[in-house]
Amino acid sequence: MDKTSLTKAELLVTPIEHLELKAFDPRPLVDAMAHMAFQARNLNRAARIYGMMLAEPGCGVILTLAGSLVSAGLKHVILDLVRNNMVDAIVSTGANIVDQDFFEALGFRHYLGSPALDDNQLRDLAIDRIYDTLIDEDQLRVCDQTIGRIADGLEPRPYSSREFIEAMGRYLQERDLGADSIVRAAFEKGVPIFCPAFSDCSAGFGLVMHQVARPGRCMTLDSARDFLELTRVKLACPDTGLLMVGGGVPKNFAQDTVVAAELLGHAAPMHKYAIQLTVADERDGALSGSTLKEASSWGKVATTHEQMDYGEATITLPLLAGYAYHQGHWTGRKELRMAEVCARA
Amino acid sequence: MDKTSLTKAELLVTPIEHLELKAFDPRPLVDAMAHMAFQARNLNRAARIYGMMLAEPGCGVILTLAGSLVSAGLKHVILDLVRNNMVDAIVSTGANIVDQDFFEALGFRHYLGSPALDDNQLRDLAIDRIYDTLIDEDQLRVCDQTIGRIADGLEPRPYSSREFIEAMGRYLQERDLGADSIVRAAFEKGVPIFCPAFSDCSAGFGLVMHQVARPGRCMTLDSARDFLELTRVKLACPDTGLLMVGGGVPKNFAQDTVVAAELLGHAAPMHKYAIQLTVADERDGALSGSTLKEASSWGKVATTHEQMDYGEATITLPLLAGYAYHQGHWTGRKELRMAEVCARA
Amino acid sequence: MDKTSLTKAELLVTPIEHLELKAFDPRPLVDAMAHMAFQARNLNRAARIYGMMLAEPGCGVILTLAGSLVSAGLKHVILDLVRNNMVDAIVSTGANIVDQDFFEALGFRHYLGSPALDDNQLRDLAIDRIYDTLIDEDQLRVCDQTIGRIADGLEPRPYSSREFIEAMGRYLQERDLGADSIVRAAFEKGVPIFCPAFSDCSAGFGLVMHQVARPGRCMTLDSARDFLELTRVKLACPDTGLLMVGGGVPKNFAQDTVVAAELLGHAAPMHKYAIQLTVADERDGALSGSTLKEASSWGKVATTHEQMDYGEATITLPLLAGYAYHQGHWTGRKELRMAEVCARA
Amino acid sequence: MDKTSLTKAELLVTPIEHLELKAFDPRPLVDAMAHMAFQARNLNRAARIYGMMLAEPGCGVILTLAGSLVSAGLKHVILDLVRNNMVDAIVSTGANIVDQDFFEALGFRHYLGSPALDDNQLRDLAIDRIYDTLIDEDQLRVCDQTIGRIADGLEPRPYSSREFIEAMGRYLQERDLGADSIVRAAFEKGVPIFCPAFSDCSAGFGLVMHQVARPGRCMTLDSARDFLELTRVKLACPDTGLLMVGGGVPKNFAQDTVVAAELLGHAAPMHKYAIQLTVADERDGALSGSTLKEASSWGKVATTHEQMDYGEATITLPLLAGYAYHQGHWTGRKELRMAEVCARA
Repeated sequence: MDKTSLTKAELLVTPIEHLELKAFDPRPLVDAMAHMAFQARNLNRAARIYGMMLAEPGCGVILTLAGSLVSAGLKHVILDLVRNNMVDAIVSTGANIVDQDFFEALGFRHYLGSPALDDNQLRDLAIDRIYDTLIDEDQLRVCDQTIGRIADGLEPRPYSSREFIEAMGRYLQERDLGADSIVRAAFEKGVPIFCPAFSDCSAGFGLVMHQVARPGRCMTLDSARDFLELTRVKLACPDTGLLMVGGGVPKNFAQDTVVAAELLGHAAPMHKYAIQLTVADERDGALSGSTLKEASSWGKVATTHEQMDYGEATITLPLLAGYAYHQGHWTGRKELRMAEVCARA
Repeated sequence: MDKTSLTKAELLVTPIEHLELKAFDPRPLVDAMAHMAFQARNLNRAARIYGMMLAEPGCGVILTLAGSLVSAGLKHVILDLVRNNMVDAIVSTGANIVDQDFFEALGFRHYLGSPALDDNQLRDLAIDRIYDTLIDEDQLRVCDQTIGRIADGLEPRPYSSREFIEAMGRYLQERDLGADSIVRAAFEKGVPIFCPAFSDCSAGFGLVMHQVARPGRCMTLDSARDFLELTRVKLACPDTGLLMVGGGVPKNFAQDTVVAAELLGHAAPMHKYAIQLTVADERDGALSGSTLKEASSWGKVATTHEQMDYGEATITLPLLAGYAYHQGHWTGRKELRMAEVCARA
Repeated sequence: MDKTSLTKAELLVTPIEHLELKAFDPRPLVDAMAHMAFQARNLNRAARIYGMMLAEPGCGVILTLAGSLVSAGLKHVILDLVRNNMVDAIVSTGANIVDQDFFEALGFRHYLGSPALDDNQLRDLAIDRIYDTLIDEDQLRVCDQTIGRIADGLEPRPYSSREFIEAMGRYLQERDLGADSIVRAAFEKGVPIFCPAFSDCSAGFGLVMHQVARPGRCMTLDSARDFLELTRVKLACPDTGLLMVGGGVPKNFAQDTVVAAELLGHAAPMHKYAIQLTVADERDGALSGSTLKEASSWGKVATTHEQMDYGEATITLPLLAGYAYHQGHWTGRKELRMAEVCARA
Repeated sequence: MDKTSLTKAELLVTPIEHLELKAFDPRPLVDAMAHMAFQARNLNRAARIYGMMLAEPGCGVILTLAGSLVSAGLKHVILDLVRNNMVDAIVSTGANIVDQDFFEALGFRHYLGSPALDDNQLRDLAIDRIYDTLIDEDQLRVCDQTIGRIADGLEPRPYSSREFIEAMGRYLQERDLGADSIVRAAFEKGVPIFCPAFSDCSAGFGLVMHQVARPGRCMTLDSARDFLELTRVKLACPDTGLLMVGGGVPKNFAQDTVVAAELLGHAAPMHKYAIQLTVADERDGALSGSTLKEASSWGKVATTHEQMDYGEATITLPLLAGYAYHQGHWTGRKELRMAEVCARA
């Protein structure tokens, strides 16, 4: 590829297409992994623990998302989980939800690129790069502005990120946008989505514009309310399981609800099930790679059914989610509509 | 060590002690690294870029912190940067600021432990583990409650995390607590501290208690305001440099201010200098390990003076910060008191 | 599991079972990965490049193996590649070939274990651990001794590791052992196997016993001859492709043949195709994680068709090898019987 | 840097310069790390264990080297260990010893480069790249040929790599080359150097040329003899300690000597001390990142005094070796001249 002569149109050619769980059945492979070693066996165990969460009546499943998962082609995998009652609440970084899912719901796409492209040239062309994926920055600005307009339409008071993301879902529904959007599907299924660091993405740009334009009568984002609402979700379920993709704030946030419940005077059990797909290492002491056993010392996660799998999520999540999908324990599950619990918080 | 027979008092014996920059001079070693390869040479270059930030008149230095740095013995290194005008604003995960620094300011300590300890036993003893470090969970609960009480004393309105952390600094100053606290020193030096995911730590516990106790008349945390304030910091400096320890939300947040400034109609330059100490890998596409060149495609970081160094921060940050400290470019720097810029935002 | 009370028989219960390529068809998943990002897309590209190697008439395929692959349940995957003419030469660490494949051919098994087991207790029970896998050390000693006896039966002269491993294959064939053994199948298919650091495993133990018992009239292992023979393999093929699992000595050795050919006065082309499955990082400067582009500066690998995939091999190799198997380009391939080229070297 | 216009002379400008242990004293820093967490504390413990090895009368120290350490500027650090009786035997990858140390002894240098250089262009210029370091390929060919000539001068029989590397040391001494060469210093100090995969480097090229030119009357490399000799070293010391930099074949080889000794009927104790500096992760099950506790299940390493440190060696080895150097336990140590033990094997 002669980089120097490519135009923006020539670079943004081939869009990312999202994998669907019905398109492949990994059960024969993942079942065989039970008899192997290392991360194959770990993946098998994680997949079976996810199946246990889905099979157990009343167990609420909290999905946490960190990393650029939606732009990487995993949007429909997550959508399949939402649509088939395989997840009851989501905690995510803002980028997955706003810059990537909501962005695509507005009609935009992500494009195949390469880590070898010249970033200075990309900047000149207003193309943003995520490793091997490209985004039209002008389209991202439309996304920011749409967020700003949604904020403009809201009553000026503090909101949880969950409330704001519901407003985004309603925006899509009213305009019939985002047929395959996680934000819209979650809105319609009553699955609350939390972005505890919500300003840390395109949403932040939209909200800053909103606040600057309306000093003194603007909406605000109350991140403490996020925490309170997610704690209510924890308390509403007799048991809970965590399906964590990556680490970061979403992992920490979801685990912390056990402690928060306790502080509010409720004897909530630890998360009964916990699995994490991650490439992070425990040896730097940071939370992202910290073991789920370590989380047990904090009283957050029970150790009986926990499993980490070390691997990059574009490969491991399809295997794990596809296994649970084709295993079919979700067929007997009901919508828990945890968003309604949050709204009452 | 016979784990089964140890009591809490026997486990929480030897406290973490914090390294001070004046105690060692790494210049001979770091200078020699310029002529070597791999991460030694990268560390040398990162250290020299930090020196350039400090030597350039008017250049604002933004420090971002992710990972369990304060509990790991790096508190005094960060404190030395604050006290000697080597940093003008801080963006951090909540744990470093609240659970670790403020916690120690209240008189508590972190203790040497081991990753091999039995986590179920630790839970029974109310001891929390961070890799090889132990915390008395009962003391953490005191920290949560103190946060709750500080919130109780504030006028019920939306606050940026920076405002709340200033209130924490004032709390310490008034009671003469935390002689070596980052929170207190930053308060006194006018260095704003932002925790964009502020509920994601002990602060979240305190604020949830506050909100539940005072429905309808509680304070809230406006994370959009955090973003607006940090953007004002960016705009107040002719040039800026980023010193990033770890990735996560703080890295993203600090980088994004360039775009935010632009959206507010100000032609802010990219961050002129950017260094990151990290163990994250770029191959999973997540932000924490994404290259600073990639950030350049987003228009956030200029590529002339950027350097990542791959290594764990308890080893690399002392070498980098110690180099800059003993190099002494900070002697001519003034307090920029960016907290005052934030307060006017 | 109460570790302290388990006996050897209670620990060595559930054997590793080896995945077979015919048991699952990953094509729908791996095809979809072409439209995704990060390591999924890389895996798709690596799988397609492997297909190109197999489809190209005359292209010799060299498989390199590092890491504990055979003990981890990948023996039959490698066996399927050998049996279906999907690989023409193998370069491996000794452990895969001797301690694991030949060991199982003698009738022994690997067992499911856990990284949390107490290693001092395992040592007392004469159980060896590879991460989450267990081996009966007494059986390993039988393997060592068998190697020693094979050496005892050979004419005392220098041997390449390829020659010795053929003698191991013959040993199995004559006794009708190892129906699913890579060593035996490769012997029968004329696929040479090289272990350039052959003493670095159970073979070393056997050979040391042989040499000590027969001073002055023992066989020796000539590692320079290994290199010469593999270079002959390179020269015998108009083009070559590398399928590298892990890095280490096998990666280096296979790449180096291009240079060796040149030094012998033959204008051998670079390896036309090269793929590597690895978890190693390039930032430490070591060969295992060094990019295939870097190998191109050395004149070893052409850059048109090269792809690394970052992931652990128990997950990525089944997807890659399964894709190529079900794609079926191997059906038109002939046995190249490169062992005969080596024997003439 | 405009890559396209640079000539070879313009690229090979600034040579790597080797750090010397006397040039810096890391004791104040490394001592303080004892009270910190994570890899700083691990590094402190590893450094103290190295000190214990040196302080214990009769304890033999085996240094293992993997990764491109010599080219990276660590040659003089290793040289300082050899010269000051801080190491009694070395097991290394071939590249460090031949392509890098012996290469520099012939008067050549390594040069500062960048991982961003165009590898196809480098190949056209006959420049080889190791991450951020450059080598003149024409000079490497001189190195290969010198190896070939040394082989030509030897009596045609099987040699251990240790014997051949001694011949290289003698070659340098006779010509008064390599004043700062590890190969020469080790030769003069009686420190045996083993490269168990000796063909896997420039030596392989030289030896292949030698063998092709002299069919039937060439020297050969007996890697089984390497193993036997190193086992004799183990047996000659009442106790042993391992200082391992990286993993790979050298780590495995050095650990295995305990088992080999046992098989030869000698009750050799496990390695009493063991430390490893590595960036490898244990989760892929490969030996390089396997824990030293795992090695204990194999009966190779005692668990009382073992410590791994996770970090890249250009940063961690100077701190560790510098600590031990300035601590000074080596002042009372004698040359063990283990090469003489090997020669008698």
